[in-house]
Amino acid sequence: MLLEAIEHRPEGAMAHPLDVSSLKVRIRVKKGDAEAVGLFHGDRYQPEEQDQPMTLEKVACDGRFDWWEGVIPTETRRVRYVFWLEKGGKRWWYGEKAVVEKRSDAGAFQFAYICDGDRFDVPEWAQDAVVYQIFPERFANGDPDNDPEGTLPWNPASRPKPDSFYGGDLAGVIQKMPYLRDLGITAIYLTPIFLSPSNHKYNTDDYYQVDPHFGELETVKEMVHTAHAHGIRVIFDAVFNHSGAGFFAYRDVLEKGEDSPYRDWFRIDSFPVATKPEPNYETFANGVADMPKLMTHRPAVREYLLKVAEYWTREAGIDGWRLDVANEVDFAFWRAFRQRVRAIHPEALIVGEVWHDAGPWLRGDQFDSVMNYLFREAVCAFFAERSIDAKTFDARLAAARMRYPDQANAAMFNLLGSHDTERFLTLCGGDRRRMRMAVLFQLTYWGIPMIYYGDEVGMEGGPDPDCRRPMAWDPVDQDRDLWEWHRMLLSLRRELAPLRRGQIRTWVVEPDKGIYGFLRRQGMETVGVVLNNGIRRRRLILEAPDWEDGTHVRERLSDSRIQVKKRRIRFTLSPGESAIFTQD
Amino acid sequence: MLLEAIEHRPEGAMAHPLDVSSLKVRIRVKKGDAEAVGLFHGDRYQPEEQDQPMTLEKVACDGRFDWWEGVIPTETRRVRYVFWLEKGGKRWWYGEKAVVEKRSDAGAFQFAYICDGDRFDVPEWAQDAVVYQIFPERFANGDPDNDPEGTLPWNPASRPKPDSFYGGDLAGVIQKMPYLRDLGITAIYLTPIFLSPSNHKYNTDDYYQVDPHFGELETVKEMVHTAHAHGIRVIFDAVFNHSGAGFFAYRDVLEKGEDSPYRDWFRIDSFPVATKPEPNYETFANGVADMPKLMTHRPAVREYLLKVAEYWTREAGIDGWRLDVANEVDFAFWRAFRQRVRAIHPEALIVGEVWHDAGPWLRGDQFDSVMNYLFREAVCAFFAERSIDAKTFDARLAAARMRYPDQANAAMFNLLGSHDTERFLTLCGGDRRRMRMAVLFQLTYWGIPMIYYGDEVGMEGGPDPDCRRPMAWDPVDQDRDLWEWHRMLLSLRRELAPLRRGQIRTWVVEPDKGIYGFLRRQGMETVGVVLNNGIRRRRLILEAPDWEDGTHVRERLSDSRIQVKKRRIRFTLSPGESAIFTQD
Repeated sequence: MLLEAIEHRPEGAMAHPLDVSSLKVRIRVKKGDAEAVGLFHGDRYQPEEQDQPMTLEKVACDGRFDWWEGVIPTETRRVRYVFWLEKGGKRWWYGEKAVVEKRSDAGAFQFAYICDGDRFDVPEWAQDAVVYQIFPERFANGDPDNDPEGTLPWNPASRPKPDSFYGGDLAGVIQKMPYLRDLGITAIYLTPIFLSPSNHKYNTDDYYQVDPHFGELETVKEMVHTAHAHGIRVIFDAVFNHSGAGFFAYRDVLEKGEDSPYRDWFRIDSFPVATKPEPNYETFANGVADMPKLMTHRPAVREYLLKVAEYWTREAGIDGWRLDVANEVDFAFWRAFRQRVRAIHPEALIVGEVWHDAGPWLRGDQFDSVMNYLFREAVCAFFAERSIDAKTFDARLAAARMRYPDQANAAMFNLLGSHDTERFLTLCGGDRRRMRMAVLFQLTYWGIPMIYYGDEVGMEGGPDPDCRRPMAWDPVDQDRDLWEWHRMLLSLRRELAPLRRGQIRTWVVEPDKGIYGFLRRQGMETVGVVLNNGIRRRRLILEAPDWEDGTHVRERLSDSRIQVKKRRIRFTLSPGESAIFTQD
Repeated sequence: MLLEAIEHRPEGAMAHPLDVSSLKVRIRVKKGDAEAVGLFHGDRYQPEEQDQPMTLEKVACDGRFDWWEGVIPTETRRVRYVFWLEKGGKRWWYGEKAVVEKRSDAGAFQFAYICDGDRFDVPEWAQDAVVYQIFPERFANGDPDNDPEGTLPWNPASRPKPDSFYGGDLAGVIQKMPYLRDLGITAIYLTPIFLSPSNHKYNTDDYYQVDPHFGELETVKEMVHTAHAHGIRVIFDAVFNHSGAGFFAYRDVLEKGEDSPYRDWFRIDSFPVATKPEPNYETFANGVADMPKLMTHRPAVREYLLKVAEYWTREAGIDGWRLDVANEVDFAFWRAFRQRVRAIHPEALIVGEVWHDAGPWLRGDQFDSVMNYLFREAVCAFFAERSIDAKTFDARLAAARMRYPDQANAAMFNLLGSHDTERFLTLCGGDRRRMRMAVLFQLTYWGIPMIYYGDEVGMEGGPDPDCRRPMAWDPVDQDRDLWEWHRMLLSLRRELAPLRRGQIRTWVVEPDKGIYGFLRRQGMETVGVVLNNGIRRRRLILEAPDWEDGTHVRERLSDSRIQVKKRRIRFTLSPGESAIFTQD
């Protein structure tokens, strides 16, 4: 047993309450090292003699480490536990003090109390959600009357420049609601819609005004109303890290300099404020003069922005927020944000933009979820670039899951691409087969699938701004097969609860053959997914863990039946082919 | 290189900003494994080519792992970094993705932004503080008129029962202020003083009323005033996890049952409320009927208790709070507590009672410090019980330090004992020599020494309630040598800034001989401490890392001079003897 590899802490992703009477614990052990892992647990105020035993399950391998999990039940909410690990007939004990051979030397971990006030409550609806990301300027032009000057013709093959306008607006979103419903979408996330001179509107000039090229307050309300009528929730984008150059407070500082009452809203090195050659104030990224960084720790700034969030949550009746550059704004601000937004809408979903490890924001006090770029990286590498094998793919997914509490994993925004990345099909070199497999994976994996507008009809595009071409609406410009593939898989996801809410376990990994499969389990129901990302046709004989001999499973894509024999199922997959099994 | 042992996360104790332009990072490596560790760092928005190199220092060994540290400077507050580790001429890279031989495969860690709103600001005064813990009922009886009925004679040799009263009060604390100042105390922490039928008063009946046996509001004010006049700060004890049985809200629920507007302030299983045979409501620990658990997540309860904290902070002008059973109350409550108390007193010190790993509470958003029982355990084992050797002692101290950010380490309440433990001298079997060495260690180590009343004059006592005997005031009952030892060492601590504010490094560990030494460094100044916890007289030849050949160091306890020769100093320590070196 490699003792130095063993790791647990009684906090964060490694020990998180699922509810007031269940504590999920995870322990990390060197890959292949432990044959069995378990623990003894008890109330912290009771003598050790009353401890209860429990075995853990090996749930994931991240390449270097195995992860074992279990859920400790508690009636008193005060949990003390000590792990044991077995290998070759030998047992080690692991507690707060050490990993040792004598239990009494190990100490015990303490999860002092499962507090009601610290519950990680992700809205129930998130578990069944499928999100569609809309970049409003490029999604649909429903009202030509509000088009900006110099609007270009709506051509999905055109190559947008950083300052191009195509006339997309909220009326367009309203018109296309039936399209989204038909696809199987349950929520839309719109990039910013507030007053801004840019097409992306990540530089907000007025947080209280809808950009007139997109519509007005009534259009927003109608959009949300229409969405809700179609069973679709609406998520807005909050850009609170920085404002735009037209923001009233920034204008005031520009004009009045040191005398401006808003001088503290920004970090200004010297007066007068200068935007050239380099801004003499802090901005988003380096020297982006028209994105002055907001001092969110100043009470006045904080209150201003929180009121903005409250206003739109209440006035537009939206269902959540996606938070731009979320990791450069203080935790304290986001905690207040969650409290204030949730006070108005207890089921509001809060999603941060964090491209790297988002652990610190996903403890229940700030975000429910993040844009899951760790997921995207793994999917791109495996399906599009084919730069990693099935084993590494599985390991990367496992590592990403083990970073976060289950509540967050269930609500991750699992994306293949966004307005900030190359389009997935382009990364696939236009290879539909790879794209289809990746989509199947995305729509059967754990978390919220997030589809970037147009991906479902085969749009292509390189990095920003090319990934923001006008949506292809003419069927001749659409890959209808790919659209149907999405629709069919989303329909299956709706039908099969395990695909939405089931726990996930790796089923088969054959790195040499490009075969990857996993199981989703909920209650007595199991769905098995297998795909062939290799280059040869493969005959597979898989253990059928939850299906009894003699019964049949149904492969849902081909609608064929397979009998379980010797606790195994046998079938064939061509390259690019997938299978989804359920009990028949 | 044992790759599985290498560990870093860009958060918490492993990556914490010291101020807006410095990020302290720590990395854990298998003991003895790395010969050199360093990193490359840069602004997250700048290309990797502009990264700057930095080497790290090995600062501690916790027995199984070495810990390397460094402080990354940043002007833009956005830090990206990748570690390298060297052994045997080979180099590994460690980033967010992996520990690998190729830098480009490692990825990089991201500390997205050092936010002003998340600053961990421990009050400046805490770094120089020496705290004295007062159990008011047993410290001094200044006003016999307010003695409870049945008050026992003040006899420091008496054995208190759980319900004994001896008449100690706040007038007594006021009278003894010169005593505390003479000893060298800079802050007192008083266990609870609010209305309560018990002698310990951890069951509060009225949070707004001083217990009449202790005094009244004016006495409190006079005490704080007197303390401040003596250069002594005052810390109160907040018992917010539970109330007492006389608390108005609890009384109301007892009387009115389901109809009480306060029914939600507690967790009651069924009505009517019953206290016997077992309480049918949640309590502190198991079934302590007169300590009903408060539902601090309820807005009304939270607001009530926060107002209590605000009231006393403002009205009495105190300088901080110690929080009872802090780990069973929600994070959200403590975050609000910090904000509200700090808004009134920006320099208020907030100290939690957490006996185990307190990491989750020490991120800057909740507590500044905790009662450092991890320190006490190590000190008891090494000096009192002699159950561990110098190496294990050093390892335990290192492990405790590596758990927390530096700001918290600098403010730890390093205690030898408290009202909840056996007295230290008793644990030493009355052996003064052991006690003196432990005291010397406590008063020269990093963090805030916390002296439990009476320990400084050699009081003894077993577990609660025996550790709560009336204070020995008569010189004949006092160990005046021990008192003088404390006074002298505290005077030295005042004189030598490194003992208060210097970083700490292990200097010498000779487990076979019981020799342990460490260095405290601040700027150009170094203080070296060595002690002989063994059973034989030892001749020591130590490297003099910061002192030049030919110069002299002064041993401050014996006031002797030693010349540095060949970069070494030579001296002798008898068992129980210690030495404190400074540049002469």
